[in-house]
Amino acid sequence: MLDSFLRDLPEVLTGATEGPGTWSPYVVIAHLIFAEKTDWMPRLSIILQHGANRTFDPFDHEGQFRNLEGQSLPTLLDEFKLVRQENVTRLRAMNLTPEQLELNGRHPALGLVTARQLIATWTAHDLGHIVQISRVMARRYKSEVGPWAAYQSVMK
Amino acid sequence: MLDSFLRDLPEVLTGATEGPGTWSPYVVIAHLIFAEKTDWMPRLSIILQHGANRTFDPFDHEGQFRNLEGQSLPTLLDEFKLVRQENVTRLRAMNLTPEQLELNGRHPALGLVTARQLIATWTAHDLGHIVQISRVMARRYKSEVGPWAAYQSVMK
Repeated sequence: MLDSFLRDLPEVLTGATEGPGTWSPYVVIAHLIFAEKTDWMPRLSIILQHGANRTFDPFDHEGQFRNLEGQSLPTLLDEFKLVRQENVTRLRAMNLTPEQLELNGRHPALGLVTARQLIATWTAHDLGHIVQISRVMARRYKSEVGPWAAYQSVMK
Repeated sequence: MLDSFLRDLPEVLTGATEGPGTWSPYVVIAHLIFAEKTDWMPRLSIILQHGANRTFDPFDHEGQFRNLEGQSLPTLLDEFKLVRQENVTRLRAMNLTPEQLELNGRHPALGLVTARQLIATWTAHDLGHIVQISRVMARRYKSEVGPWAAYQSVMK
């Protein structure tokens, strides 16, 4: 879905931000890749192996900016597709039982969470970033739409 | 992009709303189809033929609810793809000049607008509704994500 959304768009859209310190669609894709590698599945493994006895490693919210030099958006989309497919394949192969889904883990800031909540957050996190990507690109049109901006809540 | 996003999702997501009177992703797709048929290209034709002398017909914001009975989401996605492709083909064939893009039209509430602003709004309107679709589905996970809701601005 992200591939069909973004691959053929010009950089003026995929590189757009909402101001200093905010993320472009390009940076969001790099963040999604980084989360596939360091967040969801590693934390699920910690829950299954150690339960709440081992606190998750903190997630690095700037981690996507490392090794980003020279990576084009199509390259990132290819990598995201690959790492996501690998993780979904691994997750399915785990055949988690209802009991395993209720196992606790310990988040460094939020405290006790369950494997089920972690997996739901994985999905909701995708959707939240699709909101962000679409909002950033919509706002790029704020001056171009002229009077119609008044009708578009996304511009506010 | 909407096809790869929505076609295979369960109705618990594509039929979800944000409360009474708000639109599900399913209704948004019907609205996008209705706008293809009655808004963008018809208004562009009015601008090119009549300029600001003929006010646009008001857009019916409930129009998508007519003839919706028995239409599945995949059927709507197929129809949207068809009408959008037809309109993009027609728009390209028009080969609009910079002068034509600056022609004025008259919006029933907003007053004078240009053909250029109309076409920019067509795109921004898509993006705004992708924001909406993603937000509606993300919020469906609000209770499932447990403590993580605190970290997801989309849940607020």
